[in-house]
Amino acid sequence: MATVLILMGSTSDWPTMQAAARMLEDFGVSWEARVVSAHRTPDLLAATMAEAEQGDTRVIIAGAGGAAHLPGMLAAFTCLPVFGVPVASKQLKGLDSLLSIVQMPKGVAVGTLAVGEAGAANAGLLAAQVIGTTDSQVQNKVREFRSKQREAVLANSKLELDS
Amino acid sequence: MATVLILMGSTSDWPTMQAAARMLEDFGVSWEARVVSAHRTPDLLAATMAEAEQGDTRVIIAGAGGAAHLPGMLAAFTCLPVFGVPVASKQLKGLDSLLSIVQMPKGVAVGTLAVGEAGAANAGLLAAQVIGTTDSQVQNKVREFRSKQREAVLANSKLELDS
Amino acid sequence: MATVLILMGSTSDWPTMQAAARMLEDFGVSWEARVVSAHRTPDLLAATMAEAEQGDTRVIIAGAGGAAHLPGMLAAFTCLPVFGVPVASKQLKGLDSLLSIVQMPKGVAVGTLAVGEAGAANAGLLAAQVIGTTDSQVQNKVREFRSKQREAVLANSKLELDS
Amino acid sequence: MATVLILMGSTSDWPTMQAAARMLEDFGVSWEARVVSAHRTPDLLAATMAEAEQGDTRVIIAGAGGAAHLPGMLAAFTCLPVFGVPVASKQLKGLDSLLSIVQMPKGVAVGTLAVGEAGAANAGLLAAQVIGTTDSQVQNKVREFRSKQREAVLANSKLELDS
Amino acid sequence: MATVLILMGSTSDWPTMQAAARMLEDFGVSWEARVVSAHRTPDLLAATMAEAEQGDTRVIIAGAGGAAHLPGMLAAFTCLPVFGVPVASKQLKGLDSLLSIVQMPKGVAVGTLAVGEAGAANAGLLAAQVIGTTDSQVQNKVREFRSKQREAVLANSKLELDS
Amino acid sequence: MATVLILMGSTSDWPTMQAAARMLEDFGVSWEARVVSAHRTPDLLAATMAEAEQGDTRVIIAGAGGAAHLPGMLAAFTCLPVFGVPVASKQLKGLDSLLSIVQMPKGVAVGTLAVGEAGAANAGLLAAQVIGTTDSQVQNKVREFRSKQREAVLANSKLELDS
Amino acid sequence: MATVLILMGSTSDWPTMQAAARMLEDFGVSWEARVVSAHRTPDLLAATMAEAEQGDTRVIIAGAGGAAHLPGMLAAFTCLPVFGVPVASKQLKGLDSLLSIVQMPKGVAVGTLAVGEAGAANAGLLAAQVIGTTDSQVQNKVREFRSKQREAVLANSKLELDS
Amino acid sequence: MATVLILMGSTSDWPTMQAAARMLEDFGVSWEARVVSAHRTPDLLAATMAEAEQGDTRVIIAGAGGAAHLPGMLAAFTCLPVFGVPVASKQLKGLDSLLSIVQMPKGVAVGTLAVGEAGAANAGLLAAQVIGTTDSQVQNKVREFRSKQREAVLANSKLELDS
Repeated sequence: MATVLILMGSTSDWPTMQAAARMLEDFGVSWEARVVSAHRTPDLLAATMAEAEQGDTRVIIAGAGGAAHLPGMLAAFTCLPVFGVPVASKQLKGLDSLLSIVQMPKGVAVGTLAVGEAGAANAGLLAAQVIGTTDSQVQNKVREFRSKQREAVLANSKLELDS
Repeated sequence: MATVLILMGSTSDWPTMQAAARMLEDFGVSWEARVVSAHRTPDLLAATMAEAEQGDTRVIIAGAGGAAHLPGMLAAFTCLPVFGVPVASKQLKGLDSLLSIVQMPKGVAVGTLAVGEAGAANAGLLAAQVIGTTDSQVQNKVREFRSKQREAVLANSKLELDS
Repeated sequence: MATVLILMGSTSDWPTMQAAARMLEDFGVSWEARVVSAHRTPDLLAATMAEAEQGDTRVIIAGAGGAAHLPGMLAAFTCLPVFGVPVASKQLKGLDSLLSIVQMPKGVAVGTLAVGEAGAANAGLLAAQVIGTTDSQVQNKVREFRSKQREAVLANSKLELDS
Repeated sequence: MATVLILMGSTSDWPTMQAAARMLEDFGVSWEARVVSAHRTPDLLAATMAEAEQGDTRVIIAGAGGAAHLPGMLAAFTCLPVFGVPVASKQLKGLDSLLSIVQMPKGVAVGTLAVGEAGAANAGLLAAQVIGTTDSQVQNKVREFRSKQREAVLANSKLELDS
Repeated sequence: MATVLILMGSTSDWPTMQAAARMLEDFGVSWEARVVSAHRTPDLLAATMAEAEQGDTRVIIAGAGGAAHLPGMLAAFTCLPVFGVPVASKQLKGLDSLLSIVQMPKGVAVGTLAVGEAGAANAGLLAAQVIGTTDSQVQNKVREFRSKQREAVLANSKLELDS
Repeated sequence: MATVLILMGSTSDWPTMQAAARMLEDFGVSWEARVVSAHRTPDLLAATMAEAEQGDTRVIIAGAGGAAHLPGMLAAFTCLPVFGVPVASKQLKGLDSLLSIVQMPKGVAVGTLAVGEAGAANAGLLAAQVIGTTDSQVQNKVREFRSKQREAVLANSKLELDS
Repeated sequence: MATVLILMGSTSDWPTMQAAARMLEDFGVSWEARVVSAHRTPDLLAATMAEAEQGDTRVIIAGAGGAAHLPGMLAAFTCLPVFGVPVASKQLKGLDSLLSIVQMPKGVAVGTLAVGEAGAANAGLLAAQVIGTTDSQVQNKVREFRSKQREAVLANSKLELDS
Repeated sequence: MATVLILMGSTSDWPTMQAAARMLEDFGVSWEARVVSAHRTPDLLAATMAEAEQGDTRVIIAGAGGAAHLPGMLAAFTCLPVFGVPVASKQLKGLDSLLSIVQMPKGVAVGTLAVGEAGAANAGLLAAQVIGTTDSQVQNKVREFRSKQREAVLANSKLELDS
């Protein structure tokens, strides 16, 4: 199984969650993405987490919107670290998704990222940072990414008024 | 098994959730209350719902706070109607609990009541109203309760300034 | 009269509320939809609820937006279970609708669903689940719907990056 | 009947709503206060408004908390101006009460005041200002009240550090 | 001067605030609309209110958005009743406008309507209701408006699924 | 007149606003504090600002709560920089105060600080920083304050578990 | 170095932040705008503030969105006054940006303006007002700007219904 | 250096943040806690992160309240995974802290936990889960903790009404 497992409640979350996969791709970390719905396929939660623990999976990334129960329920079934991505909901713009994911009770943890695509990308980055704590190749790629980010800012730092 | 099963994530929710039990008690509807945690005992969710469906249980009431996943996860495992009670959280005062319970995706439903004790009492009342649709004795007790409520207002409707 | 009565404050709510009717249609539960406005036709509230109680109506579904008083006022006039759907408002995106419907005082209950179309569909589903507690044919259809939902997830669970 | 009718959903709102009565008392405007619950005594709404219209009542003041339907439902039954006071709710601190009262749909209006006691006092003041548009005695008392308020500020405008 | 004076902070508020004027037009109540900015023309506030009090003006309607100070500041300069309309702001959707208008301190009152066009229309309606308390012709027109609203609902109350 | 003028809507704001005065006291910047109410003494706004501009006043600090109009209205009457402090309101905890102060329209600016005492202290600090841009003695005192803050952190940076 | 330094976290903030530059341009205050990211170029924060303090810079303006740390971190590295502009975020519409900027702890201050372009323009205006306290030429230009604003309102104050 | 470094902006955060340390203590993971303020000791951020990277530190936990910049700024200076804990603020109850920590832009990630003590405990748990991915002894202790939690629920799952 892949090092990072990316799960989401619906195929409609994939346009957002791809940002996590792309980030891992850039860092050379293997990933696999699947739809597992906390509400429509609740029986898959335990099995998927057991499969992840028995494979080489190190980190779970889970995205969901609205009453977003997937990240917390996956965390309930595994001892692997779970990172949650609040997908923006249509009406409440992801505030519901965010609170549903982040406000976990003491004893079961989800490390929550920002609402939407930035959060998905950062879930991939944070997973790579976790892998990087024991894999210097991945950590070096994270460092390079950081340097390039820095350089991109420096290269375009002067601003002039639009005419 | 009791006609209404009242579940909650923690014994600390019981002071709030008792209001549901007391309401059912008044209407002569049998109930049973248990702690089942979506996050700490996720393996009990399916079993508890299967047990409820095989017994005579007609309605599930579930209370939880914060990232309140219990009502929605129970709903995922049963075809019985599930009513959810957002228990007030310490910091965000139950807004997180409310959004986590009510904003369910299309296909799995939770009928959500008000935050806190009023919501718990109304979950019991709503369960009795459901039972009452096919049990005229319970429906009559609901009617009587309503009449008494009305009379209580009428009996104290005149107001004077505190001196 | 139909088994489920779907009421709403304005014809402009019908595009949202149709999702409840379609869900009931799928489960073979008879329904009727009408506009009854809490504010523009307040005199119809009591009469409509009396009519529903005297017919075979088992469940009331009510949708409204903004200062959404319809579900709670219908609940005040009937002992039938009432499910409320917060229709999204133009500016506050349904947060006002949600709070106006869900925060009912102790003694008059409204089981509230999610804001918008998902909530309307789930109101239909929840009504069918209530009917299903004493009608095995409807309950079986709910079970089938659930199975199909599960299969739809399983059939599309593998995800690949957009090129 | 009194010139201003002060209605509220529960005797528990009276400590807040008294501020409206006291304000009217100061301006020499006659008032009467009653409990009329939108949810527990919905049949009284129409009758109470009819009674008010047939008496000399000029303004309705209504206070309620949570899913606060009373002001809007009274407005639905009368052509008299209705002013609403959001009473602070236990958990959501009156944000629910405020949105439930103020977000009325086009065609039925409620002039809404601030959450809590300040809003209740101002409902009394605003009612007096309405009366004052055709009653110079009341308007003069409002003017005097304003002058006294102004003088109270002027008399205590210098501030020194607490030692 | 007109019976109702409609003021707003900017010409950009006029598309929203016209709804108040149209409502008054329908009721045969004379109105006049002007731009007076609390922040850009603060010196006009006192003068405009003095002019209104010396004319036959009975009610002030004021609309503003964002840090919406106009309604409250007008109220500070007059004993005429002031009704405030929160105009929707670009980013925070009028929640800022609403709180800036409605949360007035004890002693200076603004009767606040809903955010946006519905609120503007209702400000016109509420002003007419105030006039109507001493002008039976206007009150009758309000009654007729109400009847027509009711009939419009009744005429379109049956709903069918879109094919 | 003092270099910094601290104004507030009510003596009840003084316990919060004293933090601004104390901060200025520490930096050796002269200050004067007065109650000027936007709503109860609106006629004083223009006069007070004219007085400030004619004296040596360099910065205005204004605190207010709820529909907090004072900072913005002072800004409307002066070209001196105005810093606003949202005083916490009883029910909405200062969210109303914050939005009423910070969301000023283009063309009249208020530099807004945090809700409550921290914001009041920082208003004093920011005023001193403004003075400091042309007064090296004050700027040096700000620098010293910063150094002491830094040292206070360093002196207590090690933490051990409470037994 | 310019009198006012305008910094922002990303070139994508420039369309919003240009409003600050244009305002300063109008007042004849020299400005320079750069991208400095709190998160991507954290090592530049101290250096940029040191450079500003050693040059003739009098005021720092900083714009950022989401978890907007730039204004507060710049304030941590300088004794110059810092004004912060919350740039609107995609999902939460700048409420996150606003709270991240304004809620600074006691001891490090950021004068915060409104969300979005109005706030950016007002940051430029407030900076000019600060400069104007010791530069009568700039202060006079601010006064003129104010007069023109006033005249623009007066010139278009009469409103008529759209046909 | 310890395996997990717990940092916070103020000693006043320690009562909350101790829950992280206690959790790590239970799992046999070494930790060290220090006060490092983003705003009062900004120069320590880079140095502290460099020290952590050169030691054996695997995870950073950072707690802060209000405009909570510490977690994000630490993340800007390190490639180690950073977990953020929103400490409850006095007025806004930690909603400001939460949004300031979680809404990080793409490219710098903070895994955010719940507001307050539950979040602090879960930060310790999540750090242990990260360590546990390559340290079976720690992972086994996490598993045991989970089992005990489960048993604690089972041992107290029956509930009876308070007499």
